[in-house]
Amino acid sequence: MVPYTLEGASMLHQMFRIRWSAWKTLDEQKQKALIAEAQAVLIGMQAEGTSFYSMIGHKGDLLFVHFRPALDALNAAELKLAQTGLADYLEPTSSYLSVVELGLYESTQRINKMLVDRGLQAGSEEWDKAANEELERSRVAMAPRLNPETPAARYICFYPMDRRRGEDKNWYQVPLGERARMMHEHGMVGRKYAGIVKQIISGSIGLDDWEWGVDLWADDPVQFKKLIYEMRFDEVSAVYALFGQFFIGVRTQPEELGELLAGRRP
Amino acid sequence: MVPYTLEGASMLHQMFRIRWSAWKTLDEQKQKALIAEAQAVLIGMQAEGTSFYSMIGHKGDLLFVHFRPALDALNAAELKLAQTGLADYLEPTSSYLSVVELGLYESTQRINKMLVDRGLQAGSEEWDKAANEELERSRVAMAPRLNPETPAARYICFYPMDRRRGEDKNWYQVPLGERARMMHEHGMVGRKYAGIVKQIISGSIGLDDWEWGVDLWADDPVQFKKLIYEMRFDEVSAVYALFGQFFIGVRTQPEELGELLAGRRP
Amino acid sequence: MVPYTLEGASMLHQMFRIRWSAWKTLDEQKQKALIAEAQAVLIGMQAEGTSFYSMIGHKGDLLFVHFRPALDALNAAELKLAQTGLADYLEPTSSYLSVVELGLYESTQRINKMLVDRGLQAGSEEWDKAANEELERSRVAMAPRLNPETPAARYICFYPMDRRRGEDKNWYQVPLGERARMMHEHGMVGRKYAGIVKQIISGSIGLDDWEWGVDLWADDPVQFKKLIYEMRFDEVSAVYALFGQFFIGVRTQPEELGELLAGRRP
Amino acid sequence: MVPYTLEGASMLHQMFRIRWSAWKTLDEQKQKALIAEAQAVLIGMQAEGTSFYSMIGHKGDLLFVHFRPALDALNAAELKLAQTGLADYLEPTSSYLSVVELGLYESTQRINKMLVDRGLQAGSEEWDKAANEELERSRVAMAPRLNPETPAARYICFYPMDRRRGEDKNWYQVPLGERARMMHEHGMVGRKYAGIVKQIISGSIGLDDWEWGVDLWADDPVQFKKLIYEMRFDEVSAVYALFGQFFIGVRTQPEELGELLAGRRP
Amino acid sequence: MVPYTLEGASMLHQMFRIRWSAWKTLDEQKQKALIAEAQAVLIGMQAEGTSFYSMIGHKGDLLFVHFRPALDALNAAELKLAQTGLADYLEPTSSYLSVVELGLYESTQRINKMLVDRGLQAGSEEWDKAANEELERSRVAMAPRLNPETPAARYICFYPMDRRRGEDKNWYQVPLGERARMMHEHGMVGRKYAGIVKQIISGSIGLDDWEWGVDLWADDPVQFKKLIYEMRFDEVSAVYALFGQFFIGVRTQPEELGELLAGRRP
Repeated sequence: MVPYTLEGASMLHQMFRIRWSAWKTLDEQKQKALIAEAQAVLIGMQAEGTSFYSMIGHKGDLLFVHFRPALDALNAAELKLAQTGLADYLEPTSSYLSVVELGLYESTQRINKMLVDRGLQAGSEEWDKAANEELERSRVAMAPRLNPETPAARYICFYPMDRRRGEDKNWYQVPLGERARMMHEHGMVGRKYAGIVKQIISGSIGLDDWEWGVDLWADDPVQFKKLIYEMRFDEVSAVYALFGQFFIGVRTQPEELGELLAGRRP
Repeated sequence: MVPYTLEGASMLHQMFRIRWSAWKTLDEQKQKALIAEAQAVLIGMQAEGTSFYSMIGHKGDLLFVHFRPALDALNAAELKLAQTGLADYLEPTSSYLSVVELGLYESTQRINKMLVDRGLQAGSEEWDKAANEELERSRVAMAPRLNPETPAARYICFYPMDRRRGEDKNWYQVPLGERARMMHEHGMVGRKYAGIVKQIISGSIGLDDWEWGVDLWADDPVQFKKLIYEMRFDEVSAVYALFGQFFIGVRTQPEELGELLAGRRP
Repeated sequence: MVPYTLEGASMLHQMFRIRWSAWKTLDEQKQKALIAEAQAVLIGMQAEGTSFYSMIGHKGDLLFVHFRPALDALNAAELKLAQTGLADYLEPTSSYLSVVELGLYESTQRINKMLVDRGLQAGSEEWDKAANEELERSRVAMAPRLNPETPAARYICFYPMDRRRGEDKNWYQVPLGERARMMHEHGMVGRKYAGIVKQIISGSIGLDDWEWGVDLWADDPVQFKKLIYEMRFDEVSAVYALFGQFFIGVRTQPEELGELLAGRRP
Repeated sequence: MVPYTLEGASMLHQMFRIRWSAWKTLDEQKQKALIAEAQAVLIGMQAEGTSFYSMIGHKGDLLFVHFRPALDALNAAELKLAQTGLADYLEPTSSYLSVVELGLYESTQRINKMLVDRGLQAGSEEWDKAANEELERSRVAMAPRLNPETPAARYICFYPMDRRRGEDKNWYQVPLGERARMMHEHGMVGRKYAGIVKQIISGSIGLDDWEWGVDLWADDPVQFKKLIYEMRFDEVSAVYALFGQFFIGVRTQPEELGELLAGRRP
Repeated sequence: MVPYTLEGASMLHQMFRIRWSAWKTLDEQKQKALIAEAQAVLIGMQAEGTSFYSMIGHKGDLLFVHFRPALDALNAAELKLAQTGLADYLEPTSSYLSVVELGLYESTQRINKMLVDRGLQAGSEEWDKAANEELERSRVAMAPRLNPETPAARYICFYPMDRRRGEDKNWYQVPLGERARMMHEHGMVGRKYAGIVKQIISGSIGLDDWEWGVDLWADDPVQFKKLIYEMRFDEVSAVYALFGQFFIGVRTQPEELGELLAGRRP
């Protein structure tokens, strides 16, 4: 049985490698002009929900994370970024498209029980209408989590993931109650890191190559490792989680772009 | 046992990345000339069954979807596109070749039962002749679905897929009746999205690297996620579906090409 | 137990992408000269067993299929092609090396039974001598199939494949009689397409990354899909076949090269 | 149950291919200047925990291994390296991000037993406080292993690895005592190579695409093979280890950079 | 239980694609100079254990196989090759690093039985000393096989391989006696090809991405296919062998380099 979900802001992660050799051939004046133009664009985008990060390792040098109200606004954002002069010195290495998602395993159980108790028939028009009213109430209550501010922490960790559909161990064949129990235990681990690691989950089934995207923010990046290692022993992660690539970045402000492009970690 | 299928229009998906750096070096007059030439070609192709989309993310910037009566007409279309001046600023990143397919699980059961009732022997000449007559009747009735118009919605979602042939769970070893039942349940979910998501299935066994291609069109792209997530709990998807990459695009008209190439989402 | 096989012509498939942007910068005279040179080479190679195809999709634009008496003649062919001026406008994207192979499951059973009946000991010198005599007889009888002409049909479909060696389902652990039975059923499906689809099987164990290469030729490419889909329900394909990439091309004559390089499907 | 771990220095591996063709076009004076600049940077970085290696094979020509107190210092190191003139002749091929980790399977058992004996409740505030005190004691005692010097041996071997989470054999579902026993046996093999092979384990869950990185140093590289082959028969490796790529390098000193870039193994 | 192995020469395979377009732009005099320089280097390297091959297919055009006494001599060889002017027209596509290995399954059983019969304790100092003495004797006896000459045959076939560590079928969990029996049967097949196919096995655990490299040499390349196909039905190959890419080349002498670079198979 399908758990209810709520969808919020659309998200695009963009990873780029800096073409350092080409960039370094520019004279200082040209570099300054390009930095100034890019800063102006990024400051404008920041107001719309964009943050960026200096990435560690060869998977890229810059990570942009865009939150927007809809997918076409994300398309507009990537097009706008591509028009900056700086973009001529960036090479796309990866990206990820998703929408902020709240998976409501506990509400699903609660709502469905309530509707059954009211004598409604699952899948009937009355059921759907009543369920939607409940979900609408949740959507309002959870609006800030559906349209989140970019957390202010120094480090970001992003990775996509799937739930396993193995020949034997198949998440989508596990009864809802079992899944809800495992998700609850999983959430309990996350709660231990409240205030230390901030997490935003986005759904990407039908939008990108994995089922979910996970973004974590923390001031101490070792906490990413601690949290994910601890979770790996949860039943839901141990048995049913499949992971894509991991991307790590250090938050950078538009004002620090010049420092970064001069090769100095601000 | 093999279900009957009907084949219609041939389809080619082409994904390209725009070489923005090179494009931006052109002066306005040159850009306008290239856009005008490409627009003329695309307007002509539109009449033949081509639509295009501004893609989100690094998998490409432009997606062309061509419907044509046959494969060599698709070859002609890609060759023609490659001759435009604009093509010098496009880099192919992916493609997909298939033919529109209607899988007739229910008709297969109905027709075969009818032929058995007539006392025909499966695989005999009489059987094949009678079955073909029935299929011909379906082909005529279903002509509009075999040679579809491009749906008018704002967003497209394309992905290829396979049916699992695992060591234990193997679609091609499941009895026809079981497969027909699972496909029916699967179709029931799709029906709930009638009017919201428009779907075209194409077959690519023997033509490309996956067995089927799925194209979805919708004005609200979150519905792609809703639909596919809900379907993922169907037995046929949960157990037997394997997915390739997902490609998302925003419909763009030939008249909007100039806007798009100026970096503005029209 | 190992089935007897007969080996014939050596085969090389070469896939190339056309560097359209570079090609289009050449003036007409230069293009004509390069086309004329390439035509002359291709007409000469045609006599030696080379045909070529305009490919559909991004996996390549040109597919060359070379039949030669031995591997070093294939090496000579690819070296010769690389020396043409046209080759400077081609980028290799893939290739496949194999030798035409007839797998003699039925003869293996027949010959071995005969040798057992004669009282010979499997693996003894007498056995090997007698078996080789039988195989030599087959080789003579099957010479035309071992050194085939390139079929004249409009479309080609090429793909490599393996037999599964799973932890549970392992082709190479199935008794010979079982394998022979499955191969026989598989052949029965192929026979239904006689005159519609022409097939050449080549072996590539020890030569390339998959175990076999399959080439199909047909005037109606939908028949590739029909044939392979029907076969997918055979036990040997359903359970034991693993497939690589599929490549589709439209036959092109050396005389049509100019048309093709002008972007027109001849 | 999660074993306790201690984290130390942050580590970044960077692999580069030398663009020999471009490098060789430089005149001797320019080469000398670039070498001198790079040497100065590398001598400075050596003091901060950087060593480098001439790699064997096509996966890269230069491997840099950076130890730093934190991730942003690694980001600073890679940015600094990218600013050298030499970097224009280097192409990144791979990288790996991790933190030095001591996995305390035996201490976990000892500490937990002690806390149980004291009557503490697992997960309670008292338990966590007491456990942290114990870990803090270990951290001080093991400080040199948490912030290691770069071993002085001639060869390095680096590879990333995972613990298997198969449908049947799943490390994260094995009871702690079993895991501790297997890790102990594994360690016994390592001990036989004490003085011959020096090993540093780093954790990369949440930081990079595999769970752990393994660095080995030895003067005789055949000992890498001997050690890893012997370990492969350990239960923990045989059943639960999955390996990424292996990278091999020969230690090179900043003073030897000129020799190396002249194509001579110093 | 770990079988004893003996290690000999270090081996590096290097695969390169020829940049034909760039090469062909050189005038004849320049080409001759580069060929002469490369010939001199290759003749010198030949004396040290290097041979080279014209590869068939897109995986590369030139394969260099270096035997050397140690890994740093391999590093020196690849650095030296990179300094030739010809190297500017070569693009690395792959490589493989390993050491010649003799796996002593039968000796392991014989030696261990002998030591047990002497009353020694496995793993004790006496045992290790006695075993090493036995191995030393083997090393002397097998010196020619540990430091082999490059076989003189026309064709080479190289591929890397692993032993399977599946969840169910795991080579490293099979008792030594069983493994020895399977390896013996495997060797019996190889023996049938004595004088037809020459084989050198090298170990690469801890050195490269697969566990072993296999090099075969033969004058008739169809024998590669015959041998490997026959072996695939051996229990050890059928159940436990996993294969990487296959590389095929035609032996070329330094004196023939000019012919080859003129596009003629010598």
